[in-house]
Amino acid sequence: MTDLPVLRLRPKSKPQAIRHGFPWVFADEAVLDRRSRNIPAGGFAVLEDAERNAMAVVTVNPQSKIVGRVMDADPQAVIDGGWLSAKLARALQMRERLYDAPFYRLVHAEADGLPGLVIDRFGDAAVIQPNAAWADRMADQIAEALVQVTGVTTVILNGQGRARGLEGLEERMEVLRGHTPSEPVAVPMNGATYLADLLGGQKTGLFFDQRPNQAFAQRLAKGATVLDVFSHVGGFALAALAAGAAHATCVDGSAAALDLAKGGAGRMGAADRLETVQSDAFKAMERMAEEGRRFDLVVCDPPAFAPSKPALDAGLRAYERVAKLAAPLVAPGGYLVLCSCSHAADLTAFRNVSARGIGRGGRRGVLIHTGQAGPDHPTLPQLAETGYLKALFFRLD
Amino acid sequence: MTDLPVLRLRPKSKPQAIRHGFPWVFADEAVLDRRSRNIPAGGFAVLEDAERNAMAVVTVNPQSKIVGRVMDADPQAVIDGGWLSAKLARALQMRERLYDAPFYRLVHAEADGLPGLVIDRFGDAAVIQPNAAWADRMADQIAEALVQVTGVTTVILNGQGRARGLEGLEERMEVLRGHTPSEPVAVPMNGATYLADLLGGQKTGLFFDQRPNQAFAQRLAKGATVLDVFSHVGGFALAALAAGAAHATCVDGSAAALDLAKGGAGRMGAADRLETVQSDAFKAMERMAEEGRRFDLVVCDPPAFAPSKPALDAGLRAYERVAKLAAPLVAPGGYLVLCSCSHAADLTAFRNVSARGIGRGGRRGVLIHTGQAGPDHPTLPQLAETGYLKALFFRLD
Repeated sequence: MTDLPVLRLRPKSKPQAIRHGFPWVFADEAVLDRRSRNIPAGGFAVLEDAERNAMAVVTVNPQSKIVGRVMDADPQAVIDGGWLSAKLARALQMRERLYDAPFYRLVHAEADGLPGLVIDRFGDAAVIQPNAAWADRMADQIAEALVQVTGVTTVILNGQGRARGLEGLEERMEVLRGHTPSEPVAVPMNGATYLADLLGGQKTGLFFDQRPNQAFAQRLAKGATVLDVFSHVGGFALAALAAGAAHATCVDGSAAALDLAKGGAGRMGAADRLETVQSDAFKAMERMAEEGRRFDLVVCDPPAFAPSKPALDAGLRAYERVAKLAAPLVAPGGYLVLCSCSHAADLTAFRNVSARGIGRGGRRGVLIHTGQAGPDHPTLPQLAETGYLKALFFRLD
Repeated sequence: MTDLPVLRLRPKSKPQAIRHGFPWVFADEAVLDRRSRNIPAGGFAVLEDAERNAMAVVTVNPQSKIVGRVMDADPQAVIDGGWLSAKLARALQMRERLYDAPFYRLVHAEADGLPGLVIDRFGDAAVIQPNAAWADRMADQIAEALVQVTGVTTVILNGQGRARGLEGLEERMEVLRGHTPSEPVAVPMNGATYLADLLGGQKTGLFFDQRPNQAFAQRLAKGATVLDVFSHVGGFALAALAAGAAHATCVDGSAAALDLAKGGAGRMGAADRLETVQSDAFKAMERMAEEGRRFDLVVCDPPAFAPSKPALDAGLRAYERVAKLAAPLVAPGGYLVLCSCSHAADLTAFRNVSARGIGRGGRRGVLIHTGQAGPDHPTLPQLAETGYLKALFFRLD
């Protein structure tokens, strides 16, 4: 028997959901007495139902709305280096089947059996985001297991972002293994080359989640003129250039991101086909409309306008405005790709405001494809409703 | 001015939806007096709002729940050979951008501006399904425009299926241009070769809609043992073999479909890696479980168990049973693909019963991909909620 403390479900809570794979215990479902409150944030406990039957090993964070996260359905499990290695090996096995080169999200939290932990792999380097207290506490052991299982030589801890705040974790940025990369890493994806700044970038430096949507856009890109609004490091623009686009324009507010886009295009020998515009995206689209500019393919991949429920209404209005401003920039018979990475805006709501925005922009369109995050971002079926990334591909009249 | 009869909206109906692109007028939205009832099924009319403003040209079918379908938002439009050719050219332009070879759904009804009309292209041959009265009436002109725009030499009319009954149309099967094909057509798709029986097969002989899902399954197939349940002509099995699967087993009730699967595998030089089992799918899965058979990849693509709302509950139970019987046949760490082509079962409902079925089959899984019909099956945003094809890719524990 393990000597872990106990987290017990309240008599009225429903243990069935957890038995069927739901991974979380909310604060109002657990008995929070003096002993359970004394479990340190990120510590482990045995979850028991109200009848004191052991159900699972959970990690406990009394400061979070999610007080318990299931680590292992086996209440006898010991969460140590060997346990971590087994989870990483399992995650790696799927990615190696799916991808030719070692550039992917290696661990996507709950769905890879590692609650709140995100790991992106960039060849010989890995960036870990410990967004749950247990992972922050065990970061060094995670780095060790990563090196053993995958052979990476550099492990960076990127402790930023909204999720950490909800767990009561502070910002951290550390090189756990290897040395600080002196320059951006070149990432091959869909035949393009991206530059990822593993220390200074947003999230882990590059967004792997749009890979299948960028691949779909490539099928529309041959010979096309392309506008990539909110381009970051050129996700869609460089993919389009790799697929034979005649010309691509990146619009982003960040000069650093645009420099990385230019660097990527340079590596691809496509610098002469890339234009970058550092500007507020809304203003840039208004200006281009006034200038009468038209593109065969327009992509808008804005930051999350509706990251949470209270931001939903304003977020949906912002998405509608993006669609309204982008639609007139699409050439007749051309394509418009509208993306949302907002958890709170579900697919139906996002599709509705997108279609309305296109109409208010004076155009009509049909939907030819609805994209999502790639398979290196798996989801538990119990949490699938919250699939955050949506990419709508419209053909306009 | 055209001399078409008038179909007028009732005072309380809402013309805005149609002005924003909704394509249908339901029977209770239109004034059905003696004159409008005298419009022959499949005839054209000018749609007016209650204030007698001309809104569009519609096709009228007083026998259908959908009495009007918008043909053209321009009330002056003349629906003739030239009009048909323009619509077909527009549809062709998109498919030629998306596909290397001329095998695709060329026209997907409303979203291609041709209400109720489906056309599948198989190289030099095309199969048209006129599922609305206007298209049945104008079938010969459609065939003529098809030959002119695409260069096909054979045009077959396949007038079967449920949709025609709702329009009051009888079954018909006719060769409109060219000659009756003497043997099944070889269709290249995802590197596999399928045999399509354009006259005797289901629907138009082959399902193009699963193409992206078969392509995704290929990423899981290398070196794998594969079970394709409800295989029809081997859609997933042959795709897997083309991607290097070690072995594939097709289960279907139809000996004719299995013969076509064998014929396709033969053309691919993969006949020795294909096993076919003619059987009821449920019984075959039970039998395989008893025999302890396990596969790295199991795909279940059953017929529509919930084609309409009244069939929904029984349909969802059938999908759950498929998941429950299939899950035990998946090897540890293997993949299970569950498909539904039921309009009435939405994605959430289908995902829920699939996850429950997997649980009742004694397994757990995470969702790595949710697939849909390919982009040669576009949808109007206003009708996107009804997207019929769902393919859930689970990785099992």
